[in-house]
Amino acid sequence: MARQERAIRTRRAILEAAAAVFAERGYEVATISDVLERAEVTKGALYFHFPSKEDLARGVLDEAVTTEGVRPQSIKLQELVDALLLIAYRLPREPMLSAALRMAVDLESRRLFGTRWPDWTELLAGLLREARERGETHPHLDETEVARIIVCAWTGVRVVTEGLPEEYDLPHEIATMFQMMLPSIAVPTVLARLEVTSERATRLVANLAEDRLKQEWDVQQDTGTVGS
Amino acid sequence: MARQERAIRTRRAILEAAAAVFAERGYEVATISDVLERAEVTKGALYFHFPSKEDLARGVLDEAVTTEGVRPQSIKLQELVDALLLIAYRLPREPMLSAALRMAVDLESRRLFGTRWPDWTELLAGLLREARERGETHPHLDETEVARIIVCAWTGVRVVTEGLPEEYDLPHEIATMFQMMLPSIAVPTVLARLEVTSERATRLVANLAEDRLKQEWDVQQDTGTVGS
Repeated sequence: MARQERAIRTRRAILEAAAAVFAERGYEVATISDVLERAEVTKGALYFHFPSKEDLARGVLDEAVTTEGVRPQSIKLQELVDALLLIAYRLPREPMLSAALRMAVDLESRRLFGTRWPDWTELLAGLLREARERGETHPHLDETEVARIIVCAWTGVRVVTEGLPEEYDLPHEIATMFQMMLPSIAVPTVLARLEVTSERATRLVANLAEDRLKQEWDVQQDTGTVGS
Repeated sequence: MARQERAIRTRRAILEAAAAVFAERGYEVATISDVLERAEVTKGALYFHFPSKEDLARGVLDEAVTTEGVRPQSIKLQELVDALLLIAYRLPREPMLSAALRMAVDLESRRLFGTRWPDWTELLAGLLREARERGETHPHLDETEVARIIVCAWTGVRVVTEGLPEEYDLPHEIATMFQMMLPSIAVPTVLARLEVTSERATRLVANLAEDRLKQEWDVQQDTGTVGS
């Protein structure tokens, strides 16, 4: 393995470990030693990539806004739905995403690092503007406002259902939320063609796996270890 | 002031103080001394009403589900909207409500005391069932599911907008949220007659003041201090 490739993998392993620790224990309580133990790297390697616990937190938060696995669709609104269905599938399974949400909700971490909610809002507002240009949305929609309410509702579904005594399937709940909101966003002819189900989330995961294999391949190519 | 009336007032003052401390500092960090200092009551009085910090927390949470100030309406769905618009107006102004939400969102307090989200869901589902019986809602609506998504979205609007760099007016945001969801709930003839604005929230506050005066009067009557 080339030195550069190893560095990329080490950095990733540390971030994954930090996310797992933050997701389980919370940023405040977590220590660098917890992360070291989980990541199984040397102290030197950890401090080389992330000089402080704050850097670890920022590294985790930088991974929180992603459309990885989302494919271009003939209906732009489907991409918006896909992005949030996929995150609903991934968040309970990926500490990198659940840690970021936990830090956003925690008042102390939020004060220190802010949240990625404005970035999500901007991303969704961009998709809504593209959807409008294609005639997919109702006229007079305020894209930024709608994007903000979607981010709020998505977050609320996660935060509240996690605290309820029964277990809920996040992609199913997010699909239900979208089914309630989309009639106010999409024109009927588009609405009828959207797929908004938890089953779609499960199918999107295949794209995600494909993207990750490709990313892995790119790392190997960039660092010249293909075939070595 | 009769002894019984004084006891009711003291209990209330302690709860208000505890809520203010929990809302500001969080349940975990708050101490009984903080509450004592804020409530300006004797240690004996505090322990008489609330033998432990846990009892204070439960007392605060018991005040979190309320339709105080909501008046019967010819359209039942308006009552549902009114209840949540009014809470949106009150929550940023009343520690009793913001403390309950902070405790619900905090993982540790939630583990200890649960949340009042199931009670809110039940209350809204009841209103939705009454609305259905009057023909106000679309057929085939799952009232419990819709109620849950409303609770989720409401909570998300509060949690997320509080964490955004700009300031948002909670009743305005909740009104926007309802404007996006109600077309999926109410039949068009009802939708056209609903009032879903932040201005309505402001007007509902007058009812609340009236209810409180009446409550005050009832306490005096029950304890025989009227005219004394």
